[in-house]
Amino acid sequence: MRQVAIIGAGMTRFGKFIDRSLKDLGREAVEGALGQAGVEKSAIEAAVVGNASAGLITGQECVRGQVILREMGFGDIPIINTENACASSSTAFHLAWLYVASGMCDTALALGVEKLYHEEKRRSYAAIGAAVDVELVQQILAQMQAQAAAKTKEQAANTPGGSGAGQSRSMFMDIYAALARSHMQKYGTTKEQYAKVAVKNHYHGSLNPHAQYRERYTLQEILDSPPVAEPLTRLMCSPIGDGAAALVVTTAEKARQYTTKPILVRASLVGSGKDLAPDEPTAPTRVARRAYDIAGVGPEDVNVVELHDATAPAEVVIYEELGLCKLGEGGRLIEDGVTELGGKVPVNTSGGLLSKGHPIGATGAAQLCEVFWQLRGECGDRQVQGARVALTENGGGMVRGEPAAVSVHILSA
Amino acid sequence: MRQVAIIGAGMTRFGKFIDRSLKDLGREAVEGALGQAGVEKSAIEAAVVGNASAGLITGQECVRGQVILREMGFGDIPIINTENACASSSTAFHLAWLYVASGMCDTALALGVEKLYHEEKRRSYAAIGAAVDVELVQQILAQMQAQAAAKTKEQAANTPGGSGAGQSRSMFMDIYAALARSHMQKYGTTKEQYAKVAVKNHYHGSLNPHAQYRERYTLQEILDSPPVAEPLTRLMCSPIGDGAAALVVTTAEKARQYTTKPILVRASLVGSGKDLAPDEPTAPTRVARRAYDIAGVGPEDVNVVELHDATAPAEVVIYEELGLCKLGEGGRLIEDGVTELGGKVPVNTSGGLLSKGHPIGATGAAQLCEVFWQLRGECGDRQVQGARVALTENGGGMVRGEPAAVSVHILSA
Repeated sequence: MRQVAIIGAGMTRFGKFIDRSLKDLGREAVEGALGQAGVEKSAIEAAVVGNASAGLITGQECVRGQVILREMGFGDIPIINTENACASSSTAFHLAWLYVASGMCDTALALGVEKLYHEEKRRSYAAIGAAVDVELVQQILAQMQAQAAAKTKEQAANTPGGSGAGQSRSMFMDIYAALARSHMQKYGTTKEQYAKVAVKNHYHGSLNPHAQYRERYTLQEILDSPPVAEPLTRLMCSPIGDGAAALVVTTAEKARQYTTKPILVRASLVGSGKDLAPDEPTAPTRVARRAYDIAGVGPEDVNVVELHDATAPAEVVIYEELGLCKLGEGGRLIEDGVTELGGKVPVNTSGGLLSKGHPIGATGAAQLCEVFWQLRGECGDRQVQGARVALTENGGGMVRGEPAAVSVHILSA
Repeated sequence: MRQVAIIGAGMTRFGKFIDRSLKDLGREAVEGALGQAGVEKSAIEAAVVGNASAGLITGQECVRGQVILREMGFGDIPIINTENACASSSTAFHLAWLYVASGMCDTALALGVEKLYHEEKRRSYAAIGAAVDVELVQQILAQMQAQAAAKTKEQAANTPGGSGAGQSRSMFMDIYAALARSHMQKYGTTKEQYAKVAVKNHYHGSLNPHAQYRERYTLQEILDSPPVAEPLTRLMCSPIGDGAAALVVTTAEKARQYTTKPILVRASLVGSGKDLAPDEPTAPTRVARRAYDIAGVGPEDVNVVELHDATAPAEVVIYEELGLCKLGEGGRLIEDGVTELGGKVPVNTSGGLLSKGHPIGATGAAQLCEVFWQLRGECGDRQVQGARVALTENGGGMVRGEPAAVSVHILSA
């Protein structure tokens, strides 16, 4: 397979854009990516578009990519619509990479785009709730309710069990909260350590003009924000958002015609969950290990990471899954400042899902934009000095107790 | 890129299956394909799933493939969800082919699955209506209404302009009817010639155990069936349906371990519409020409074809687009019996969309199943004797006056 390079990236600011259409958001991201790459539309030979929720939010299904791209003047080329919940656009990027790596075409576009805000908030939560197997989740919820009933009344008082933000949101946050509590029980991780992840990511986000939320918070402010599901507070949870992100990939050879700073895609993988045997590694662990193998690097070589911090505790768990530290030492890693700007491996310099925002179908592509810009030294106040190797990890949905999709990419300057 | 072969195919009968789930339909098709291939689930290294409408019909978005495949015991591998309206599963097949052709993996699965029937018929039509750019279609409808108003009253009386079956259905059928009338005006094609396509496809479908409708009709019965939009009658239009179809692909080299009758994928293409200059060839024409080039064959070499007869007149137009005859001679081709069983190039031996049915996300994969079985000589009463080269053409959606997606595959024994 051929070596592939990223030569341009573009994204909208993430935020609440009730009045902007998918077309409008997509156009800004695509024009940004083409502009940075210095590539004409006519040079794009394939386009892959990731979106998770337009069907349920706007009623536009089936041909979402064509609706956005045809109006911009793209046509004739393969336009592929792909969906993998929160990993929709890392999947889109993977397929754009595959088009080029395979030799099928030389230059391809990946776009992730999402509008999650809707005047009826119920619709937004229904869209998020579609990222699971509805039948199975109802079974899991029934089990969790049975477990909760078996606990002491005092514990129950500390676990409100929902954000009040709608059934689907609360269901996902209940799952995340259960994972967070399990990590605390097993490894002694503390709520303060989780809160530190949120302090860090909100601080990083304050340095990123593309971030939805740019406020900084103290540890106490994170802990004191409204409870969602113990130990999660609102500022430890990613918000709903709208936005788009795009990348242009081409062969490593051709990249040099466009730029002196191509960024090589050293590994591009999508995996899925499985029914785990006891002590079997989780989906992010398995996919990351394969990616390291293919890229010929280890976690110790990685200088900057974007990972799927749908909640602050998830980031701690994923540190371990990516091998940034040993199992159970994630809490210590954030405590020691290893993953903050200035630390050994800054994580989520963009602000991550917590602060940059999480328009789910745009998130994976936006992670790749961030590390692309980091490896090119284009991140201004949030630049990781001398970054040479980057990793992104993007998870999507939940089916039978594991993520439905996990995508890991490793890039190098 | 590596040569790829199909080694197994499976599908459900198409029909109205209110009580069967996507999981249940998907399982039957996948087990059929694996069974014919003699491949264990564990040998499948990637799976691509095409579905167009589950989001709007069942509320299941985002991770449709995982929901179906994880329960069957698939896991860990990339599971890609793709959507291209009525071309969703030819797109899925194209990506499964790309996985293998690229060298990324050796053996992959493509699945198309759809449930279009819903107790509220409105939902089914809303799902079909999502295959266009909603904003633009409203403009087109306004133009058509303006044109209709300018016509004589008598003409208007002959163009009921809708099937009464719901807004979205009627909108698509109005577009198809306008194309049919335009072909009649330009080339002298007759309503009887269109009706002969329906006679042929319903006859072919009567020989296919997988077909939704297996009744045979006379020319007069086709013409006398309820009017939809002049010149379309109900029996000239594809029905709504549920169903699933799946294929297993592997490298041409590895295929010989599994079967003495691998079928080679000589060309696998997906294209999209464009804004046409005057006299520029249409999307199916452009994609088919590229496919012939890549496969190194011409239309004269093709022995059996499955094409996208969403309506009977569409089949006549596509004859010309695929180069089976010259422009304007499509009516003559059906008249002369060239495309019926026993003719030089039998078209839609499965019954096509008209008779086999059109569960939109399953249609493309089902076309590939049919020609795979034809090239292996496994089609029983509808077998095309000595078929060596086959072509499938699958269109999806409509954006800015051209199909949103067109997929063409050429296979050979």
